[in-house]
Amino acid sequence: MSEKKRRRGEAGPSATGKKSRPSSRADELRKQLKSDADILESVRRMSAASKSSTSKTLTLSDLNLSSACREVSDRDASSVLLSIERAALDAARSILSGSGFSFDIPSRSSSNQLYVPELDRIVLREKTSARIFANLSTVRKATITARVLSLVYAVLRRNIHVTKRDLFYTDVKLFQDQSHSDAVLDDVSCMLGCTRSSLHVVASEKGVVVGRLIFYDDGDRIDCTKMGIGGKAIPPNIDRVGDLESDALFILLVEKDAAFMRLAEDRFYNRFPCIIVTAKGQPDVATRLFLKRMKTELKLPVLALVDSDPYGLKILSVYMCGSKNMSYDSSNLTTPDIKWLGIRPSDLDKYQVPEQCRLPMTDQDVKAGKDLLEEDFVKRNEGWVKELEMMVKTRQKAEIQALSSFGFQYLSEVYLPLKIQQQDWL
Amino acid sequence: MSEKKRRRGEAGPSATGKKSRPSSRADELRKQLKSDADILESVRRMSAASKSSTSKTLTLSDLNLSSACREVSDRDASSVLLSIERAALDAARSILSGSGFSFDIPSRSSSNQLYVPELDRIVLREKTSARIFANLSTVRKATITARVLSLVYAVLRRNIHVTKRDLFYTDVKLFQDQSHSDAVLDDVSCMLGCTRSSLHVVASEKGVVVGRLIFYDDGDRIDCTKMGIGGKAIPPNIDRVGDLESDALFILLVEKDAAFMRLAEDRFYNRFPCIIVTAKGQPDVATRLFLKRMKTELKLPVLALVDSDPYGLKILSVYMCGSKNMSYDSSNLTTPDIKWLGIRPSDLDKYQVPEQCRLPMTDQDVKAGKDLLEEDFVKRNEGWVKELEMMVKTRQKAEIQALSSFGFQYLSEVYLPLKIQQQDWL
Repeated sequence: MSEKKRRRGEAGPSATGKKSRPSSRADELRKQLKSDADILESVRRMSAASKSSTSKTLTLSDLNLSSACREVSDRDASSVLLSIERAALDAARSILSGSGFSFDIPSRSSSNQLYVPELDRIVLREKTSARIFANLSTVRKATITARVLSLVYAVLRRNIHVTKRDLFYTDVKLFQDQSHSDAVLDDVSCMLGCTRSSLHVVASEKGVVVGRLIFYDDGDRIDCTKMGIGGKAIPPNIDRVGDLESDALFILLVEKDAAFMRLAEDRFYNRFPCIIVTAKGQPDVATRLFLKRMKTELKLPVLALVDSDPYGLKILSVYMCGSKNMSYDSSNLTTPDIKWLGIRPSDLDKYQVPEQCRLPMTDQDVKAGKDLLEEDFVKRNEGWVKELEMMVKTRQKAEIQALSSFGFQYLSEVYLPLKIQQQDWL
Repeated sequence: MSEKKRRRGEAGPSATGKKSRPSSRADELRKQLKSDADILESVRRMSAASKSSTSKTLTLSDLNLSSACREVSDRDASSVLLSIERAALDAARSILSGSGFSFDIPSRSSSNQLYVPELDRIVLREKTSARIFANLSTVRKATITARVLSLVYAVLRRNIHVTKRDLFYTDVKLFQDQSHSDAVLDDVSCMLGCTRSSLHVVASEKGVVVGRLIFYDDGDRIDCTKMGIGGKAIPPNIDRVGDLESDALFILLVEKDAAFMRLAEDRFYNRFPCIIVTAKGQPDVATRLFLKRMKTELKLPVLALVDSDPYGLKILSVYMCGSKNMSYDSSNLTTPDIKWLGIRPSDLDKYQVPEQCRLPMTDQDVKAGKDLLEEDFVKRNEGWVKELEMMVKTRQKAEIQALSSFGFQYLSEVYLPLKIQQQDWL
């Protein structure tokens, strides 16, 4: 895996070769670059700290909250099968004892959600409600719940994976609308205390990964240094992913596929041992699970490269804190400790991004930025607050690709190496 | 590559196990299935015909149209570099001789487009226009053209690949809006007579491939039978793809990622040697180039699995005929001979897809269907016309996943094998 691939292009003047002011600033910054070994030293320290970190991830039980709060966990098929059988037995017993047929379903409403600052995550409180078969207002939902349980049971028994849409189509007459089967699926996942992926109901993947990572996808050994420029598609079935190995020093989380392509083509990971991953915009569940998995098993720091706009930060927040409607599943989907490497509002002046490559923020952008300033995950990081305040004040945003104004390979040859050398992350 | 992977689940009753009428029809169809060897015989014949086919793809010169029409072709970096140098020399000579500075740009307007029935493609006629520097109405475009030529030259010299967005950001002051640099890029591609990929300006990829295919992505050997369930992301840079090898009998082109996932998880390609590819909806340029490349080099028949609705057929048409605004590049992007395997309107009754799994077509759907009936690529295939007329008449559509109503693996275990056994494609 340590085999060095040829790198294309040399560190030289920018591709355009013009000598205007932005370019000379770019050249100046390029001159500040130390040797690769020196640059790596900075990240090696962070990486070592991350690996030796004894501060294990806090759980609800560490906080004495396990009885007051509910979380789900990844469980293997046989244990979920057992839980479903138990649920069926409970129902049968309840019927035989004359108490009727009903399910006890955890409430997923926002009034039952709780932000736990120590965990930096949203979890569910303990409130549940009875879903009674012999009641006109709940009979339909109770029937759907029984049906979904039996379908999931069949899927797990066959050891296959299906999508939510597949599930819906198995009984359109009963479910009527996919939102109904989807909602009950989430109920079932809470009720059984396992993640949706443990139910073998998966989302479609759109993420890709490349770099210093070897893993197994359904038994096939995947070496991500040998995945060309296209990279490896992140598998939808996280439970079929195993045996992660890596000699990387960090994970580079990239918002957009254009930047991913640049780094993959330049084989950035050979110069700076890292794993590069992108969900191509809004993160999907498969990519979030995969990132969490890498972070947990490899204990690597995660550095994020997103656009300098509120949307870029929103994407970071989805990786870090999850989205509200999946709060019960948050511990498996969220990677709390992500460093904001760039593009940060302060970079625009520091790197002298030309005025015409910056974009004016719309009123809606500014509002989104101000809303973010009220979010817990921003507030607890002073550096982020400052950057965000600067963004809202200057009303300027910029895409990662604005760096192309200094040459197409400026991102991989100057910007990122300098960022790492200066440990310039928040 | 011929190594057999375990297949999950057995051909048995549908996952849901219920004995309602649709299921019994499903069982009935399942019983019609012959042995895998027999089924493969059908496709083997088609595959052999496809491989031995001496009818080489027609070109413009075969039709004596090469002087009247213009097409672009894939060319390597050194030859494109030479063309750019020549264009620069021509301009210099023209200036020195007192004729001034101008480019001769092929017109890409629809009045200059021509549908060639023999090729089943749209090509450009010969009309060009002078883009003169010393003229107020064209000076800006002439300047942009010169700039794009010099940028592309730099990219090719470095032997890297960039996106359209990267290109735009190198000189926002001049380009002002990305649509301006994009349009000139297409002009340059026509002017130099090479594809956009030959200019090393690539689109982001979203397609994935899995199955009996080995190829090289930027020097890395990729065995697509060993890509797990996630599959291999199709590389954006088609010119870095090489040495395709395959023992597949056909290419299965799938509209949606859910169906792709089902087939990948069931390792369908081990039972029926094939290459499975999807662009996850609307086809992107990288996937179209990749399909064309496979079809041309491996000489395999292409079978398409799309939703039974006008949108599914539109997707087929993009693969087959291209889109109008890329007509000059059509020979590299289009794969004319694709068979419509399913889901076809006639399948809904043949497979007795339950009423509640069919969706009513909206007025807009019906209009789209009627519009398709006027399209050349539909009209020249009688079978397609009949199917489409049935769709418009019954006003019913259905997704691939409607087959899940017979069990989650019905698609891979019954529907597709039976389709192939009966050579049921159009």
